[in-house]
Amino acid sequence: MLNISSRLTDRESRAARSRERGAAVAEAAARSATYRMGMTVYAAPLDDIRFALELAGLGALTELEHFAEIDVDAVDGVLDEFGRLMADVWAPTNRIGDQTGSFVRGDEVVVPAEFHGAFAAFVSGGWGSVPFDAAYGGGGFPWVVGIAQQEMLDSANLALSLAPLLTHGAIDAIGHHGTEEQREVYMTRMIAGTWTGTMNLTEPQAGSDVGALRTRAIAQPDGTYRITGQKIFITWGEHPLTENIVHLVLARTPDAPAGTKGISCFIVPKFLVNDDGSLGERNDVRVVSVEHKLGITASPTCVLAFGDHSDGAIGYRIGEECAGMRVMFTMMNNARLAVGVQGLGLAERSLQAAVAYANERRQGYAPGAPRNEPSLIVEHPDVRRNLLTMRSITEAMRNLSYYTAQHVDLARFAHTAEQRAEAQEILELMIPLSKSWCTDEGERVTSIGVQVHGGMGYIEETGVAQLYRDAKITQIYEGTNGIQAMDLVGRKMPMRAGAVFTDHIARMRATVGELAAAGADLGGIAAAVGAAVDAAESVGLGLLRADAAEVLAVATPFQRLLALTTAGWLMGRQALAAAQGAGRGSSDLLAQKLVTARFFATNILAEVHGLVGPASTGAAELRAARFG
Amino acid sequence: MLNISSRLTDRESRAARSRERGAAVAEAAARSATYRMGMTVYAAPLDDIRFALELAGLGALTELEHFAEIDVDAVDGVLDEFGRLMADVWAPTNRIGDQTGSFVRGDEVVVPAEFHGAFAAFVSGGWGSVPFDAAYGGGGFPWVVGIAQQEMLDSANLALSLAPLLTHGAIDAIGHHGTEEQREVYMTRMIAGTWTGTMNLTEPQAGSDVGALRTRAIAQPDGTYRITGQKIFITWGEHPLTENIVHLVLARTPDAPAGTKGISCFIVPKFLVNDDGSLGERNDVRVVSVEHKLGITASPTCVLAFGDHSDGAIGYRIGEECAGMRVMFTMMNNARLAVGVQGLGLAERSLQAAVAYANERRQGYAPGAPRNEPSLIVEHPDVRRNLLTMRSITEAMRNLSYYTAQHVDLARFAHTAEQRAEAQEILELMIPLSKSWCTDEGERVTSIGVQVHGGMGYIEETGVAQLYRDAKITQIYEGTNGIQAMDLVGRKMPMRAGAVFTDHIARMRATVGELAAAGADLGGIAAAVGAAVDAAESVGLGLLRADAAEVLAVATPFQRLLALTTAGWLMGRQALAAAQGAGRGSSDLLAQKLVTARFFATNILAEVHGLVGPASTGAAELRAARFG
Repeated sequence: MLNISSRLTDRESRAARSRERGAAVAEAAARSATYRMGMTVYAAPLDDIRFALELAGLGALTELEHFAEIDVDAVDGVLDEFGRLMADVWAPTNRIGDQTGSFVRGDEVVVPAEFHGAFAAFVSGGWGSVPFDAAYGGGGFPWVVGIAQQEMLDSANLALSLAPLLTHGAIDAIGHHGTEEQREVYMTRMIAGTWTGTMNLTEPQAGSDVGALRTRAIAQPDGTYRITGQKIFITWGEHPLTENIVHLVLARTPDAPAGTKGISCFIVPKFLVNDDGSLGERNDVRVVSVEHKLGITASPTCVLAFGDHSDGAIGYRIGEECAGMRVMFTMMNNARLAVGVQGLGLAERSLQAAVAYANERRQGYAPGAPRNEPSLIVEHPDVRRNLLTMRSITEAMRNLSYYTAQHVDLARFAHTAEQRAEAQEILELMIPLSKSWCTDEGERVTSIGVQVHGGMGYIEETGVAQLYRDAKITQIYEGTNGIQAMDLVGRKMPMRAGAVFTDHIARMRATVGELAAAGADLGGIAAAVGAAVDAAESVGLGLLRADAAEVLAVATPFQRLLALTTAGWLMGRQALAAAQGAGRGSSDLLAQKLVTARFFATNILAEVHGLVGPASTGAAELRAARFG
Repeated sequence: MLNISSRLTDRESRAARSRERGAAVAEAAARSATYRMGMTVYAAPLDDIRFALELAGLGALTELEHFAEIDVDAVDGVLDEFGRLMADVWAPTNRIGDQTGSFVRGDEVVVPAEFHGAFAAFVSGGWGSVPFDAAYGGGGFPWVVGIAQQEMLDSANLALSLAPLLTHGAIDAIGHHGTEEQREVYMTRMIAGTWTGTMNLTEPQAGSDVGALRTRAIAQPDGTYRITGQKIFITWGEHPLTENIVHLVLARTPDAPAGTKGISCFIVPKFLVNDDGSLGERNDVRVVSVEHKLGITASPTCVLAFGDHSDGAIGYRIGEECAGMRVMFTMMNNARLAVGVQGLGLAERSLQAAVAYANERRQGYAPGAPRNEPSLIVEHPDVRRNLLTMRSITEAMRNLSYYTAQHVDLARFAHTAEQRAEAQEILELMIPLSKSWCTDEGERVTSIGVQVHGGMGYIEETGVAQLYRDAKITQIYEGTNGIQAMDLVGRKMPMRAGAVFTDHIARMRATVGELAAAGADLGGIAAAVGAAVDAAESVGLGLLRADAAEVLAVATPFQRLLALTTAGWLMGRQALAAAQGAGRGSSDLLAQKLVTARFFATNILAEVHGLVGPASTGAAELRAARFG
């Protein structure tokens, strides 16, 4: 974190960089004006991000004791510089990475050459440390700031962003469940970015069903374990970007109970660490192969073999024996939020590409346009509908993601235990909503992004098809969106006998009251959000009374109904902030925030009326259908 | 057509083949039981196709004078044998074709080696001739039978299916607008399948806006034309599968008026044809490059140069000078219907793959399942919802496509001129609905297909990701779905001052009455379809009174509303037929047709309630939004 801190205090050189940045922006604009294939532009949407951070209570967060040394200026500095790195250094590597892909050569994985410099710049700036504990070299910023960074990482290069993302999960796991020594040895290096981390859950027979895994861990007299087995779908499981890789591995000890209760978690470093902290012997964990995927082709998705050439890879247990699921859930909660943010990041980049193209491509005549020159397609009402659909949904995804992240911070650092407990409940309710809705909408927005480009969108050189391919994985990994729905209705809705849900409904309804009180101008939004809240409440209360099989049958449409309502509510809060001039940003920005909020209420949120039936219908046809 | 006819009369050998087919089905089932990567199974869904053909009035069509020599048995024979060719010969080439792709080598295009044999089998069986005029070597079957073939072609190998599909367009164009000599020379060969055809519309500056094209045609003293210019996105514009390629090219003659009124259409054969019918000199039309695309990678999408090495490629005008748009519309109407069918074909194949996988993959425990062995995922309610969503939408796509195709036949061959005129109106109203809805739903169904496979779906070897990539083009080509929506509100709704639309509403309402009268069992469907019809009518009548800019702003949600309502209506007709035992098929099949119809009414059609608002909202936010 030293790098960031020193830069932040060095106001003079910041000013110089700001001037440089002005030149870079001008250059990017010039590029945009001559939009060509393979050049999907990306500029960090800093004004939008700042507005959304403020809406997610960043100001109040920095007032908390834990964040005493952080102020909004410092956050601005981080966002500004990080946005520049992403736009100038990372974003240009996205398409070439997709074309090259990553592949296995011998025992090693080859990644696109351009990734080495991009990742080194990320590490040398200390950018991976921003939201972590200052005691271990972190920047001590709120988690929501880390999520804003994550958005930019995902927009710039999703495949590469997964290396730091998985590292975040490993940091969290060791931070919460590791020994002090494990924190010193592994966590500090991962926070510094010089080592990366991985999550090793999946096995061929154990995907969504982690309890079915078979990898074995045998305790040794010296307190270490020997790990044997094979894991699949290990993101960045092997790569040459850092000198070491810290694998967190779920495995079963002998005589452990069956299912999830018998699983423990182990640290398995690629290179063992000597007592003096230097790297020692190569551990027996090796890449077997890398998958050929629909998207994120440059992210090596590895099959890893543990202990194939020995009695087992050497592992160090984190937490108690058979407490591996707790460690996994720690990694997973934040990972699920982060995957939702990937939908946002891809949507933002696709939106920028579509807006740029629509401002260059001429075709036909818009209503009322003179017949001397074909219109820019941005003038056609149907294209404007596409762009406004993309933009309003992207903003709603940002609001939902940041709101969820805000409660990561509040759950840890709010003043009172009561506030922290409430925030933790909200966080748990939001995780499946945020993950599923933002990734489903990521698919939709990137699909519209291709559509705006017409036939050009289908040509890979244009770059928007890649965003569409990349988006599809986000609906699948970290628990498919169907699994999220089961989590929502099975674990989250029943929290405090349904009161966490009804508290959420009450908070949303309070905003409806504020919108209605704010005057006729916001009355339409108040009515739309109010109707959605009524619908979500009535269906949700019905589900709390229904039996399990019936509830599981409607989990997916209910999840969508509640997530969409929540997104609509947050867009209502956006409208309030913009109308009251309370949000940060120019008057133009605030005026546009009102436009997107209105469009969301009338055009996107309206879908709730089509979801009430499916979310209430029950399981009769599902039982009657025959599938082979 | 000789091949087909002789086979159809040879009952004995058909019986033998039927036994062989039984063995092939058993083998396919065995393959399915050991479902492995790269093996998305496909069996022609003949029972579903027959049920849908009957629902689309095939029986009544074969009673028409024009189809005096066709009976339902003959159709069964065609479907049976063609389904076998598609399942056994074409379907296995789909994945390898995607991996290999097509590419340019010198002046030629190299296509996947496996395509040569597959295409040759298609040609030698005379399968491209089925729905064409017997006077020119066609099979004389109804168009709707050709559409059923098309569905199977698209399921088996969409990339390869485009070669015969574009040929259909060229046959239609020459059949309607060509001279007798042009029909003899070009059309008979294309019907026989020994030559293919192409459509050359798009230029870099003229995609959706055909009027902007610049390719020039100069009349010669001998009556021919010299064509110069460049065309892009020419599907199967060059390939080695046939000895000749018949390019239909839109071009502008000197002094022709600007815009679409100055466009003429020309036949530009790859090889000129001598007076004795033999092939003569190579014409100056050459492939410049082949695009790298998101999907249908094995379909060579060519840039073609006309007249680069001469005074121009030699062309022969079809129809009058400056009447090119009429020719184009002939090609386009049927092509748009066929593109909708592509959504259906891909959905069907994805559904089959998902059902097969869900019957093999074990994961977790379904509600009430014993805890001795993990459940097949087909037992999980959320997976069943996915599968039933896929199936009910696929059936609705089939009903909508076949209903549209039925009106191609009726518009040509119904008894009275009045009936023909009415059918033509229905056809024109259905084209944008069929094209846009079936392709949008093709994206949705193939996306769910990936989702059912979980992480495996994202691995290319599994094969379902290809279907998802292939599906995306169908929303774009032959007029993006946004263009379809503009066609619907701008050209189709105003037909007969709105009466074509209101007649359609009245027909749908009549079915609601029948459903309601059929008893309580169908009452739920009657209510759901009735509500949708009310919504579509009220919004549609509003649009007929609104001004053009407002209408264009809501064209897309209205198109979706009307298409979904129409699909729901046809599923209501399916329910009626199934409940009354009127449809063809076993009692099991009919029972399942009722299940899908009910699920569609309660879960899919419900979306209309979310579309009413967006389809009525108007253009205020679209105007207020700023995009750069």
